[in-house]
Amino acid sequence: MEGEPTLQLRVFDLNCWAIRYLSKRRQERVQLIGDTLRREGFDLVLLQEVWSERDYSDLKVKLGGCYPFSHYFRSGVIGSGLCVFSRFPILDTLLYQYSLNGYPYMLQHGDWFCGKSVGLSRSRASAGMGVLASRPLFPPSSCQLHAEYCREKDAYLPHRLVQAWELAQFIRHTSKAADVVVLGGDLNMHPEDVGIRLLRGWTGLRDAFAEATRFEGCEDGCTLVPNNCFTVNSELLPFPLGIRIDYILYKAVSSFTVKCEELKTTTGTAPGMDIPFSDHEAVMATLRIRRQGQAAGDTLATAEPTLADVVTEARTEVGVGLRAARRQRYSAGRMAVLALLLLLLQAAAVLGALAGLAAGQPFPKLSFSLLAFLALGVLLLATGLHLFHTMEVKMLQGTEEQMRMALRALQERP
Amino acid sequence: MEGEPTLQLRVFDLNCWAIRYLSKRRQERVQLIGDTLRREGFDLVLLQEVWSERDYSDLKVKLGGCYPFSHYFRSGVIGSGLCVFSRFPILDTLLYQYSLNGYPYMLQHGDWFCGKSVGLSRSRASAGMGVLASRPLFPPSSCQLHAEYCREKDAYLPHRLVQAWELAQFIRHTSKAADVVVLGGDLNMHPEDVGIRLLRGWTGLRDAFAEATRFEGCEDGCTLVPNNCFTVNSELLPFPLGIRIDYILYKAVSSFTVKCEELKTTTGTAPGMDIPFSDHEAVMATLRIRRQGQAAGDTLATAEPTLADVVTEARTEVGVGLRAARRQRYSAGRMAVLALLLLLLQAAAVLGALAGLAAGQPFPKLSFSLLAFLALGVLLLATGLHLFHTMEVKMLQGTEEQMRMALRALQERP
Repeated sequence: MEGEPTLQLRVFDLNCWAIRYLSKRRQERVQLIGDTLRREGFDLVLLQEVWSERDYSDLKVKLGGCYPFSHYFRSGVIGSGLCVFSRFPILDTLLYQYSLNGYPYMLQHGDWFCGKSVGLSRSRASAGMGVLASRPLFPPSSCQLHAEYCREKDAYLPHRLVQAWELAQFIRHTSKAADVVVLGGDLNMHPEDVGIRLLRGWTGLRDAFAEATRFEGCEDGCTLVPNNCFTVNSELLPFPLGIRIDYILYKAVSSFTVKCEELKTTTGTAPGMDIPFSDHEAVMATLRIRRQGQAAGDTLATAEPTLADVVTEARTEVGVGLRAARRQRYSAGRMAVLALLLLLLQAAAVLGALAGLAAGQPFPKLSFSLLAFLALGVLLLATGLHLFHTMEVKMLQGTEEQMRMALRALQERP
Repeated sequence: MEGEPTLQLRVFDLNCWAIRYLSKRRQERVQLIGDTLRREGFDLVLLQEVWSERDYSDLKVKLGGCYPFSHYFRSGVIGSGLCVFSRFPILDTLLYQYSLNGYPYMLQHGDWFCGKSVGLSRSRASAGMGVLASRPLFPPSSCQLHAEYCREKDAYLPHRLVQAWELAQFIRHTSKAADVVVLGGDLNMHPEDVGIRLLRGWTGLRDAFAEATRFEGCEDGCTLVPNNCFTVNSELLPFPLGIRIDYILYKAVSSFTVKCEELKTTTGTAPGMDIPFSDHEAVMATLRIRRQGQAAGDTLATAEPTLADVVTEARTEVGVGLRAARRQRYSAGRMAVLALLLLLLQAAAVLGALAGLAAGQPFPKLSFSLLAFLALGVLLLATGLHLFHTMEVKMLQGTEEQMRMALRALQERP
């Protein structure tokens, strides 16, 4: 197979942490990211948390020369924050928004408002590169999953697992249209977490860090490290070396093979500078894509009995989330009913007073109307919550059922 | 090609109109649908508007013998209402929820609460059928788009076009994993509407009604007809024959060909009964799938210059929707700012009174607090609306951009 035409694909992935008014030294960093990308000339750049469309437009103008093709994925109230810059033409894009993404009332976490998604864009490696006779199609996807705010008591785990499952399903169903799949993003999961094992096992994606022939960067490939000046060190207390939550994953689908020749991360600062690109480290992979004689087939990365265990583990966690969501739906419903009863009681009292049943004024008017407004407020809020948790229950149920179906399929395979 | 192994696929599609408490004679009709499906033994049954999971479970129990595989797609507050019954094993499912689906405050239309979606399930035609040497994979999809409430002044047209576009993109990206694609559903669009032309043109799907060798049923293949006793006749006044909004569409992807041998619709009542299955007519297609020597390639159904016109037309409509959404976002934002100003003014008055600046009591307490509550209510509502329309703007912008990209790709093709 040596001597066959090959394509080298250099991929850059970064969670940019570019939130207007909130992220420190944002403009300076976005400029720095732009300068580096222009200088280094990657083939494919996958960025997350570019929340401001203005920043995207600035980058687009700056990078127009070396990355003539780009796409910004819009979703949610704030946006998905995902964008792709590419040396190769982007033929087509598709955005898949996860069905669950935290709670709208957890304002301090804000994930719900972001509409976290996976953005898929299909590119065709240019014949002008001259290194590859037949041009592989690859959909580089950029994605971000729900953040983890407390590892010990992680209320968002079921949501993140639903997202990991939906991401895996999305990749399984769309990757057949490609020769090579590249997925980069901040998955908000440690390498050994069930969500990552599920994603890798169910899609056959390979982890560039684990597969790389050469590695250069932070120890263990960490992408949230203590010596990044924007890191909140208290969050990393249990992990003195840092954690790895940003990934480049890949697989070959049809008659191609992919190998990761080199993986690099930044190490707390941008190369040659004294500030980092972001509070996350950048991940840079050099992939070698090679055409091979026969189709590789769609293999699962993990041996199937192990994969069945992973799916079972994930399903158990989703089940835990489902029970919690059902409890919350019930509480919200009960609260709404109580508020409604209070309102009805007040209405009865008013009617009674109007009919002259009660002597004089039973309540001071002010407190009476305040109470009515309070009851109305609680009724509206509790109804909203009830509807929200009803949706949550449905999506968790749906995922659990899909996982059950997957387990059956795994068990029935010869 | 004659004499090659073939597979006959009989598909049943119906919008069941099974809303608990609201749909007339629901239980009777669901039972009738179940009896007919059991008797007729279709290969594939695509149902919409099965809003009650209880109805699905009843059908599942009744149909277990002849359709051993089934799936119910959960989404939104009420659900997607989509389900699939199949004689062939369902290997995998994926639900794609449209990013726009009406307005939550249009309670009387209710589309927003349904989480309208397309449900994809991958099946493998069983070798046990013995008619086909190699087993085609087909993802039968069931889908429903936003309803049309007023054809003359259709406020939902941009949303329906976004849905048609997302449906088309979803099919394009997922269909490569299949040999044959079958899509059935209530598309809420007339055959000549821009959304249908877009969907057909951009995916290469063929309309079973237009392609069928034999047809039997309502004139012009209509599926909302005046002689269905559940039809609201005033809605059909401009269309004395009825309208066709339920479709079975199909295409072959790899080395297969598909032909529609026969298409049937019910004609106002269920066969041999005096009540209809639903307020929609059922659509039944007999498809003949044949393996051919060479791969068919992914063809577009419409000639490309025409397709470019269709995409341009759709993009114009989406642009109209975008401008309307921007206006609504602006109005909601202005309303929120005004309410906030009123609240601040009241707060200043209270502080002034407390500081003894104003002599006596400037307002009666009751009206003062009522006004404050009103302002607070308007503030919350207007903020919610502003956020909602912000999302709407983003999704319309995203779709417009994708369409622009598609147009460029169409123009650049050799």
